[in-house]
Amino acid sequence: MELYEAIKERRSIRRYKETAVPSDVLDRIIEAAQWAPSWAHSQCVEVVVIDDPAKKLALQATLPETNPAYKAMVGAPLVVAFCAKLNRAGFKKGEPATPRGNGWALFDTGLSMQNFMLAAHSEGLATVCVGLFDSEKAGAALGAPEGVEVVALTPLGYPNQEPNLPPRKDKAEFARKNSY
Amino acid sequence: MELYEAIKERRSIRRYKETAVPSDVLDRIIEAAQWAPSWAHSQCVEVVVIDDPAKKLALQATLPETNPAYKAMVGAPLVVAFCAKLNRAGFKKGEPATPRGNGWALFDTGLSMQNFMLAAHSEGLATVCVGLFDSEKAGAALGAPEGVEVVALTPLGYPNQEPNLPPRKDKAEFARKNSY
Repeated sequence: MELYEAIKERRSIRRYKETAVPSDVLDRIIEAAQWAPSWAHSQCVEVVVIDDPAKKLALQATLPETNPAYKAMVGAPLVVAFCAKLNRAGFKKGEPATPRGNGWALFDTGLSMQNFMLAAHSEGLATVCVGLFDSEKAGAALGAPEGVEVVALTPLGYPNQEPNLPPRKDKAEFARKNSY
Repeated sequence: MELYEAIKERRSIRRYKETAVPSDVLDRIIEAAQWAPSWAHSQCVEVVVIDDPAKKLALQATLPETNPAYKAMVGAPLVVAFCAKLNRAGFKKGEPATPRGNGWALFDTGLSMQNFMLAAHSEGLATVCVGLFDSEKAGAALGAPEGVEVVALTPLGYPNQEPNLPPRKDKAEFARKNSY
């Protein structure tokens, strides 16, 4: 798929078909996520792909039931957890290089996850970025080692809804020239 | 350009030609950045495009001279500042919805910046994500209002170096199945 087409047509999807994701397709999407850049090439981002129904239930339980992606956490054939090794992005010799500390782990996760979501869309699949969940419980469910945190989750599967297009604010509000 | 080609061939570039960036090209890249998703569609990310030489110098002065992108901050025809309105992404009714607080502003900036960097590459342009700078001074240089922070910077222009390809870790280290 053409890049701009993927960027403009990707939507957040919360209803999924049960259809399985072929492993070669999954491999390409994961590879896309890995190609994102990272702070000083620290490669702090990692993913866990979950198809085990019990693990999907355990992850779903880390979301509030009011989260609009709650049902998709078990309805989609796969859930992908984006994790980050802490104290790498934004750090130098083990010390924070900026006041943002491990905020840079979230930044790098965003870079990687955008690649992932674009690649998924280009393969006819859908995603929705989930940030509102109990990260500690999710880490326990996935056996994440000390120093690794689950940053964001997404269901992954074929979409089963007509996607919305939420309106963007005016370009003049988004982009400025030389100063505010 | 094809999506996977953009994802795999984008590189971090630190030497730029002086050649100006045509305004229609710039418009397309900025639009791509705006199409990224955001926390509850909060659209907290904004950009400032800088071509004023004095402003570029002022931004350069917010980087340590040892930053490998230091020279590019004035050598490239444009610098783009990715800013975020705080207390939106990751917040609900003005209160943090997760322990990560405004870390989600960095996450959303990452999503948008990846779109931007891919679109730039597809137009033959280059970028490099700069996170190591004095954000407060950069905000002052750009007249950022209260509650808006400069998260990351990138030069933008035509590349003037043969890009490196830093090796990625093994796929097995990047992606796991069901658990760590």
